[in-house]
Amino acid sequence: MIFSDPASVAVVGASDDPAKWGHWLARGALVGHDRRAVHLVNHGGGAVLGQPTVRSLSELAEAPELVVLAVPAAHVPAVVDEALAVGVRGFVGITSGIDDRVIRRIRDAGARLLGPNCLGVFDAATSLHLAWGRFQAGSLGVVSQSGQVGLEIAGLAASSDIGISRFVSVGNQADVTATEALLDLVPHDLTTVVGVYLESFGPGIVAAMSELRAAGKPVVLLTVGSSVAAQEAALTHTGALTSSLDVVDAACRLAGAVRVATPAALVDLAAVLTSGVPRGGRVGVISDSGGQGAIAADLAAAAGLTVPTLSAVDGLPVGASKRNPIDLAGAGEQDLANYSRAVEVLVRGGEVDTVVLSGYFGSYGEDTPSLEVAEVTIALQICSLARETGVPVVVHSMREDSAAVRTLRAGGVPVQHTIERAVAALGDAARLGALDQRSTRAPHAPELSVSAGRIESGGPPGGDACVSLPEVLTAPVMPSALGHSAAPPAPFEPGHSAAPPAPFEPGYLAARDLLGFVRFPRAHAVTSAADVRATCLQGPFALKADWLAHKSEHGGVKINVTDPAAAFDEMRARLGPGTYVLEEMDTREHVVELIIGAKRDHSFGPVILVGAGGIHAELFRDTAIELAPVTPATARDMLARLVSAPLLSGARGAPPVDVAALAEVIAKISETLAARPDLAEIELNPVRVGPDGVLAVDALIIPSGDTVNDTSGQRVACA
Amino acid sequence: MIFSDPASVAVVGASDDPAKWGHWLARGALVGHDRRAVHLVNHGGGAVLGQPTVRSLSELAEAPELVVLAVPAAHVPAVVDEALAVGVRGFVGITSGIDDRVIRRIRDAGARLLGPNCLGVFDAATSLHLAWGRFQAGSLGVVSQSGQVGLEIAGLAASSDIGISRFVSVGNQADVTATEALLDLVPHDLTTVVGVYLESFGPGIVAAMSELRAAGKPVVLLTVGSSVAAQEAALTHTGALTSSLDVVDAACRLAGAVRVATPAALVDLAAVLTSGVPRGGRVGVISDSGGQGAIAADLAAAAGLTVPTLSAVDGLPVGASKRNPIDLAGAGEQDLANYSRAVEVLVRGGEVDTVVLSGYFGSYGEDTPSLEVAEVTIALQICSLARETGVPVVVHSMREDSAAVRTLRAGGVPVQHTIERAVAALGDAARLGALDQRSTRAPHAPELSVSAGRIESGGPPGGDACVSLPEVLTAPVMPSALGHSAAPPAPFEPGHSAAPPAPFEPGYLAARDLLGFVRFPRAHAVTSAADVRATCLQGPFALKADWLAHKSEHGGVKINVTDPAAAFDEMRARLGPGTYVLEEMDTREHVVELIIGAKRDHSFGPVILVGAGGIHAELFRDTAIELAPVTPATARDMLARLVSAPLLSGARGAPPVDVAALAEVIAKISETLAARPDLAEIELNPVRVGPDGVLAVDALIIPSGDTVNDTSGQRVACA
Repeated sequence: MIFSDPASVAVVGASDDPAKWGHWLARGALVGHDRRAVHLVNHGGGAVLGQPTVRSLSELAEAPELVVLAVPAAHVPAVVDEALAVGVRGFVGITSGIDDRVIRRIRDAGARLLGPNCLGVFDAATSLHLAWGRFQAGSLGVVSQSGQVGLEIAGLAASSDIGISRFVSVGNQADVTATEALLDLVPHDLTTVVGVYLESFGPGIVAAMSELRAAGKPVVLLTVGSSVAAQEAALTHTGALTSSLDVVDAACRLAGAVRVATPAALVDLAAVLTSGVPRGGRVGVISDSGGQGAIAADLAAAAGLTVPTLSAVDGLPVGASKRNPIDLAGAGEQDLANYSRAVEVLVRGGEVDTVVLSGYFGSYGEDTPSLEVAEVTIALQICSLARETGVPVVVHSMREDSAAVRTLRAGGVPVQHTIERAVAALGDAARLGALDQRSTRAPHAPELSVSAGRIESGGPPGGDACVSLPEVLTAPVMPSALGHSAAPPAPFEPGHSAAPPAPFEPGYLAARDLLGFVRFPRAHAVTSAADVRATCLQGPFALKADWLAHKSEHGGVKINVTDPAAAFDEMRARLGPGTYVLEEMDTREHVVELIIGAKRDHSFGPVILVGAGGIHAELFRDTAIELAPVTPATARDMLARLVSAPLLSGARGAPPVDVAALAEVIAKISETLAARPDLAEIELNPVRVGPDGVLAVDALIIPSGDTVNDTSGQRVACA
Repeated sequence: MIFSDPASVAVVGASDDPAKWGHWLARGALVGHDRRAVHLVNHGGGAVLGQPTVRSLSELAEAPELVVLAVPAAHVPAVVDEALAVGVRGFVGITSGIDDRVIRRIRDAGARLLGPNCLGVFDAATSLHLAWGRFQAGSLGVVSQSGQVGLEIAGLAASSDIGISRFVSVGNQADVTATEALLDLVPHDLTTVVGVYLESFGPGIVAAMSELRAAGKPVVLLTVGSSVAAQEAALTHTGALTSSLDVVDAACRLAGAVRVATPAALVDLAAVLTSGVPRGGRVGVISDSGGQGAIAADLAAAAGLTVPTLSAVDGLPVGASKRNPIDLAGAGEQDLANYSRAVEVLVRGGEVDTVVLSGYFGSYGEDTPSLEVAEVTIALQICSLARETGVPVVVHSMREDSAAVRTLRAGGVPVQHTIERAVAALGDAARLGALDQRSTRAPHAPELSVSAGRIESGGPPGGDACVSLPEVLTAPVMPSALGHSAAPPAPFEPGHSAAPPAPFEPGYLAARDLLGFVRFPRAHAVTSAADVRATCLQGPFALKADWLAHKSEHGGVKINVTDPAAAFDEMRARLGPGTYVLEEMDTREHVVELIIGAKRDHSFGPVILVGAGGIHAELFRDTAIELAPVTPATARDMLARLVSAPLLSGARGAPPVDVAALAEVIAKISETLAARPDLAEIELNPVRVGPDGVLAVDALIIPSGDTVNDTSGQRVACA
């Protein structure tokens, strides 16, 4: 409880000068003087804010539990030493530039430090106000890596009337982390929804968000990075197609959290969530003006919401357009009760999950004071309807402030001055609701249709003779036929009883070997034209330089080969001696090409990607990404999210492809990377899936350590 | 000047009851009593707002020039008759439900009517206030088809301090149209930027927007319709791929206007434009907090702006991060002058086109009153810098209102309370700036490389023998070789001296014939297996039922045919006797498939579309649309806008395709539809373009009248 309800606090650096932080921190600390001892420390002595001060902590009769450091960095070491000597348990490091050795002394003494370089902490439940800024008590818990972004959130929360339950500015996180601050909110009764601003993601952050969600406290995550050009150089297409924000979004999906891009979006969504998480994305739109209703409906569609046609609209006034948007067409102005009637029709009708009321409501009482009581009464009815039915209602009002607007906000119905904020919040809330639907769904059985052996081996009669060739890679039986284990294999750890996997030696054949659960075309290793001529594979062929990571870019792959010996001679003359792979081309019809890739994110660990194949992956970035490992059920969800998903179910009269087998491969790839810390990336590109199963026609595995082989003789780092 | 500066006005229906519109209109009318005679008419007589009234217009000594109709619809006919009898020249029809016969009487008398069902008119230059609502005088001219949306715009313009120069609520446009109201703003001195809300688009609207733009008054268009599911049933892929908003956007590009989706976006953009149109999309971001700067930069990138790395950042305080975003890192708080220094570095540096300052500025004086004067001084400097350099600056302030915020707004620097509004306005302004760059560019010469004849005819030796077959369609010489006429051909009009084109008889061969400037594969009309066997075309073939509009859906096309006689027998057995087309397949490598389509929009007339071909057109909607006709230069711009444009310049090592020839075909298709009102749609799908030219491998022309032929015997309407 050091940072949420300390028995006593001291502000070191308390000042009477309103231009100094120590002034504001002292003022805030004194807010809690009924609950705890508040000591003000000023090296010059005298009174601050009318209160006596001491010159140093050692002058105090008893040690304060928590000390706020609001003195210049040069003075901090002495203050901390003195504090630790008298038994202080916690520090709030407002000062920036606190020395690492000081931080170590605090930790070695078993005390804790919030910050440094933070704005402090506020707790509405315990009158703890040790932070710069003004806070309105409320229900939003805030953890922020940036003090100023946190303050902006707090300011918006005040004007939205949702208010702050606890505010923790974690600053540099030299000791107390954002993860800890989040976990502290799990049992915090006042907090019903959590907003967090992070620029980096420490260990345990996904688990902390999940715990909050499980405790019924939805998490809204604000982060940055979409405009950062300096992504790490990508070794693979998977890397190039996976932005850091894609991975954050995947982490949010796993944790049941939602990412937003601005402080206002965070607060507006939090305001909706205080009245509940919507069950879905169907929105009912009400306005007294057709134009405003149409604008709201357009925005809703753009935000991914649906504006469904309504069947049950009894109770609306004559003349109102009973489609959705419901256009009261002046009936709202004629009788304000028509506003609440329209809300009631929607929230009780069961045909929408959220409601937005857009336009003049909230202005009538201001324009015509005799209408104020009536308008407030209708506002109270709207609040009751939202509360009773659990259907979130958001009001867009042309008036920023009025008695009706204040009534709505106090009653838990958010009011926005622009329609875009109202609709964006409902769109974000619906995204969260969709995650809830997913997580409460019964876990899927793999739902696999039998796919093993459905790709005919296609070898010629007498193909047995082929076994005398240098190497034969027979297509393995698909492991789906052997049953799928939902639990991922345990990751390899030093000291694990099983033998560690053999170190991976890069190369195409080795990748095929390692990915034994994936079906590849029949292929032979060849090192001479004689080898090539001796194969009994059937053309057309692909010829590949086994050792090259980026075959296309380095001339190490030739497809549609009909004269393999000539092709071999040509390629060997260019690239030199080595192992080449002669492979049968996949000539099936009705095949869809995809990319499946797995990589390791520096914040969140293994991730799995599936995307539209070929040039379209790059052009349209049609990809789905999740944290790895995933189950086949999640893999199917990923496939369904692709814009090009209709190709899989058989667009333009083509037969549907084997999605079950595809999902199985995605899941297995994700498990493999998760279980093998010695591997950095695995990529199958392209994967060709048809009605009769999945065939990977290229594979690339990159061992951990950021080097790939793109020449015959040496390992090179990718630029 | 009837509706902008009438010599005298009368409000019929003036009332002392604040719940009645006649009260507000009378109050507004009296605002202008110093400039013009204001008469209040109330059938009960007595005083209204302390002014005497008359019981009817005929009691007045002289006829008012303009009459406001604020009486119930039932009374309107008598009032109008009386008004016309005394010589009234104009009416503002607030009342809804005015009878069509009354409207006709007004027009027959040579008088004009604004409305009915409108909110009235306001002109800041002439103290004319004949509208519901409050208006702050300013520089934004507003024309609105919805009164309430117009009011919302006016309210936002007041709080943004841009204010309204003229407000015209056009209502049902029974007489005065939005187009007229817009043209009236061209010479209106107070108006520097125009906002218009429209739900439908009457004749001349594009020309009116263009005139305003040419007069230096940018137009911001707000409209709706993106969520409207009930689009007309599409006859073609072109129709399915062209939404009404796509066409509105094309109209805006032509007129030099920008479309927005909400009233706030309209006002926020207008506020930026009062200080100038930015030259481009490069934005400099300043904040005292790294977090707020990063959030702004992310939003900017998402809005299509670029956040360029800066080279010239001399003059920034020590410790500030000198990349872009510029992070003052506390130096702003330490010395407010660092805010204006950072603005100066950016607006004078020539490396950005706009600046956004995000965060605490605007709050200092409120938190610490002793800082207020300094903050206002810095605000004035920022205003001067923006004005002097013409580089628009927008401030996002955590404070909604303060002396500094008011100073900035009064000085022409917009201030927003959320960063999303600040950045969205700059993004919209940059879109407008990009149009300016385009329209001021020197008109392109067609820039055609010679493409005629570069597709080899590919016929067999001795192909001359083929001319004895029933029909031979030889590939025409590309008209590009004959030179391109920039002016579109004159449209066909009744009474035109040239002979009208022969009526188009649907069918594939007829379409090929009509589109003589497009190169198609060699083909023969065949009606029997004997015809098929007699051809000397080279396989593989495509076989098509000539008369079917939607060949694929009705089994009327077979591709990759190697036994054409068998294929013919099979198709004829299914579809019956008729003309079939045997066609050589295009087997070139390195070909990109596109769709080119032209259709007639009910509001804006002919439009031209080009898009990614095949299934990807539908999945990714990768299309570009302009009003037709277009020049080849515009067609190249359209191609460059496609997400899949990199395919045309040779992605993954493929050679670039003949974009010049492609642009020529697009332009010619657009001209053909524009010149032939008897044609509803023209579609080439797919068009295959390679390094050696363009080949259309299917064509569909739909005559005006909404019917297509999908059976052998009858014409059917498309569902």
